[in-house]
Amino acid sequence: MDLNSDLGEGYGHWTLGDDDALLEVVTSANVACGFHAGDPATIDRTVRRAVERGVAIGAQVSYPDLVGFGRRDMDVPPADLTADVLYQLGALEAFAKAAGSRVRYVKPHGALYNRIAGDPVQAAAVVEAIRRYDPALPLLTLPGSAAMQAAGAAGIEAVGEGFADRAYTAEGRLQSRREPGAVLHDPDQVAARALRMATEGRVETVGGGEVAVEIRSLCIHGDTPGAVALAKAVRAALDRAGVRLEAFA
Amino acid sequence: MDLNSDLGEGYGHWTLGDDDALLEVVTSANVACGFHAGDPATIDRTVRRAVERGVAIGAQVSYPDLVGFGRRDMDVPPADLTADVLYQLGALEAFAKAAGSRVRYVKPHGALYNRIAGDPVQAAAVVEAIRRYDPALPLLTLPGSAAMQAAGAAGIEAVGEGFADRAYTAEGRLQSRREPGAVLHDPDQVAARALRMATEGRVETVGGGEVAVEIRSLCIHGDTPGAVALAKAVRAALDRAGVRLEAFA
Amino acid sequence: MDLNSDLGEGYGHWTLGDDDALLEVVTSANVACGFHAGDPATIDRTVRRAVERGVAIGAQVSYPDLVGFGRRDMDVPPADLTADVLYQLGALEAFAKAAGSRVRYVKPHGALYNRIAGDPVQAAAVVEAIRRYDPALPLLTLPGSAAMQAAGAAGIEAVGEGFADRAYTAEGRLQSRREPGAVLHDPDQVAARALRMATEGRVETVGGGEVAVEIRSLCIHGDTPGAVALAKAVRAALDRAGVRLEAFA
Amino acid sequence: MDLNSDLGEGYGHWTLGDDDALLEVVTSANVACGFHAGDPATIDRTVRRAVERGVAIGAQVSYPDLVGFGRRDMDVPPADLTADVLYQLGALEAFAKAAGSRVRYVKPHGALYNRIAGDPVQAAAVVEAIRRYDPALPLLTLPGSAAMQAAGAAGIEAVGEGFADRAYTAEGRLQSRREPGAVLHDPDQVAARALRMATEGRVETVGGGEVAVEIRSLCIHGDTPGAVALAKAVRAALDRAGVRLEAFA
Repeated sequence: MDLNSDLGEGYGHWTLGDDDALLEVVTSANVACGFHAGDPATIDRTVRRAVERGVAIGAQVSYPDLVGFGRRDMDVPPADLTADVLYQLGALEAFAKAAGSRVRYVKPHGALYNRIAGDPVQAAAVVEAIRRYDPALPLLTLPGSAAMQAAGAAGIEAVGEGFADRAYTAEGRLQSRREPGAVLHDPDQVAARALRMATEGRVETVGGGEVAVEIRSLCIHGDTPGAVALAKAVRAALDRAGVRLEAFA
Repeated sequence: MDLNSDLGEGYGHWTLGDDDALLEVVTSANVACGFHAGDPATIDRTVRRAVERGVAIGAQVSYPDLVGFGRRDMDVPPADLTADVLYQLGALEAFAKAAGSRVRYVKPHGALYNRIAGDPVQAAAVVEAIRRYDPALPLLTLPGSAAMQAAGAAGIEAVGEGFADRAYTAEGRLQSRREPGAVLHDPDQVAARALRMATEGRVETVGGGEVAVEIRSLCIHGDTPGAVALAKAVRAALDRAGVRLEAFA
Repeated sequence: MDLNSDLGEGYGHWTLGDDDALLEVVTSANVACGFHAGDPATIDRTVRRAVERGVAIGAQVSYPDLVGFGRRDMDVPPADLTADVLYQLGALEAFAKAAGSRVRYVKPHGALYNRIAGDPVQAAAVVEAIRRYDPALPLLTLPGSAAMQAAGAAGIEAVGEGFADRAYTAEGRLQSRREPGAVLHDPDQVAARALRMATEGRVETVGGGEVAVEIRSLCIHGDTPGAVALAKAVRAALDRAGVRLEAFA
Repeated sequence: MDLNSDLGEGYGHWTLGDDDALLEVVTSANVACGFHAGDPATIDRTVRRAVERGVAIGAQVSYPDLVGFGRRDMDVPPADLTADVLYQLGALEAFAKAAGSRVRYVKPHGALYNRIAGDPVQAAAVVEAIRRYDPALPLLTLPGSAAMQAAGAAGIEAVGEGFADRAYTAEGRLQSRREPGAVLHDPDQVAARALRMATEGRVETVGGGEVAVEIRSLCIHGDTPGAVALAKAVRAALDRAGVRLEAFA
């Protein structure tokens, strides 16, 4: 099982999250590529540290929306979206290459991630960027999403990920953040869900039932002090249970 | 001899210059990388066309200054400047790679070009980016500049370029644009100077003497209708004289 | 009747449209405020020229999307959208004030214009900015739009505008640009439609019928050479018919 | 005596400093206007809070340099700089007006502040913006600076400010931050210096002598936890000594 988290999400003078703490926990780092966060100097630092710790580097590509942190849905035409993803992929790759490594996977960020879970047009545009850049690069996304289907149709590997701190619907979708109880905060509960997802491929749903989630990675948030504690609890639970943690890519 | 020109300097809805005309003339295209011009979709189009015509692709890296078109000197600290260049290099490389080619050289743009002609600190920062990214990548710059010295010191190849439409001082420097007569407009005169620079490595100075210019490339501007005519005149003169035109990289 | 057009839509080194020609034609100038186009120096020049010619200045507010020229729909949360509009309104006002004038109206641009024609939430957010800034400022928009309703609900004056070069549906909506025939190019036809809208408040629809359009302004595009000719044809037709042209605000 | 501090220096998702704590301490708030920090929603919040607490609002205008936080010197041509300042002034004014207040003064930020302390051309460009916008608006700057002279020459009021936590040279200039001891951290020492500057108009220099500083405001930094404690210590010392604190504008 892989543990992934968003890193390098500062911008210039502004910082966000505790990257050093997270790099001790995760096996894959989704590095911001400059469109929602991540100026070049921040990318440089983040990539160097990740490489030093043997953490795999993924391109956390986004809509071009610094002020909105990439969290606002945008109707970017497909050809522009493909170009946006290519641009970010290449930019990050330069730092990975300079640090003696390379970009191992792509994970869209924020509103783009959510959009391509359901929108086949934008999903295909993102996948097209990967196909043109390097068809061997996997896409990290939601199991059963439009993105996963678009990847499959293009012969790109798609890797499913789970969210131990998010409530799931009976269909295996994430409960909207607007609903109460959508985000879980209790470290024990989150760690237990992570362990079950990792070992059994199942998770309890909001309705009290359970649903299969075919995942090879667990996403861990780290942009708050509490989130780092949660991340450590998940890692500890998996370690204790003997789950082998390694980058999927 | 190589002929280089700035291409892809539009941004989103805005266009600049006649790229298609220039691609018929030049052997090397300095493609804007997004910091002074060149959004991802424009880069994509520009790179595809250059590759189709067999024109070599260079990274026209700049200070981050869209509104000033990269023409305003900035005190960017060296580590940030190195990261800025790496970012742009990689971004452009993604499109070159997707088009079946690669970035062949680096040519700084505007204020950065002028700054590193004289400032050893920023010159070294630009060269450091090349060294970290790919030490085999040549830097296209002014003969005798601080940039050329910094490249030499780091074991990076520096390629000198000449400007047939610019007046030269006795020291082989470009006359400042603020001086009258700094820019030449007569196609015959410009073509004659280009030919002499290409075949004899010498150019007439503002004082009426002449100076040696060790160049392997001639820079041609194309952002005005007149400039395209000038570019064609230079190309024609070189062709007639039997000067073999090919990318230096 | 008022004639309005988008002006000042260059950005830094990039220019767009023939502002000087349009300023001879229109009575109201929708000046870009920096979010989709219009850097400060361009705004300054545009506002000075408009004031010199006695053309009324309106704030052409947009989503923050330079690279997309404000033409891409964005899910900007209402409070952020209100702040975005306030910011742009004030920025433009500074130049109007410095030129001895003031901002007379608000006209949203591109995707924002289209979005608030149908989306009551974003429409209310735009109107809220006007209410907070100056409730006496009219909003220029599509007759019958959500924006018009939101303005009415907030006690803000809404002014309807028509498009002589656009096809109308039987409901009085603009035909989507994706449909063939959505944009008209024949100067005589466009001028005739403009005249009829101005004098009779009616326009022919795509189905061959006609529909009432309650307008006090006609929008004229000027970003292509042909568009300027069209604008002049419209103006000439209205002048010949004795329609008095003056800013609505 | 006035106490001023930089506020609203977050951007979108990123926050910086403890604005609420500082608003309890200062009498004037230098509000970031979007060019180095301060997106519209952040400006809106910051201005509302300042107005609620009766703190005067000043425009903290900057070079356009988000990624460099306005701390990098830029060769912005005078006409462009004047337009940049007008733009920011107006943008901030919209929020002040919407909150029932107005902009009371201008304080340039970071590299622009330092540049116009010595550069008469950029200083005049900033002053020209104030003159065109509202000649009654004072400029907050370093005593004896080029900015102060430019203001005087244009009939704009210039208000001198002191820095209790910065070392001064014998000429009454701030010691460069690159020198050791340039920034003082001991709250008692800083408070004592503030008190002396406020009551006697003198401050000890790095050489052990002292120099006159003609100030009507003290600048207080608040972007670190320690800085807030320092700010409170300064305020407490002035309060104890019976120095009346009120906005200069």
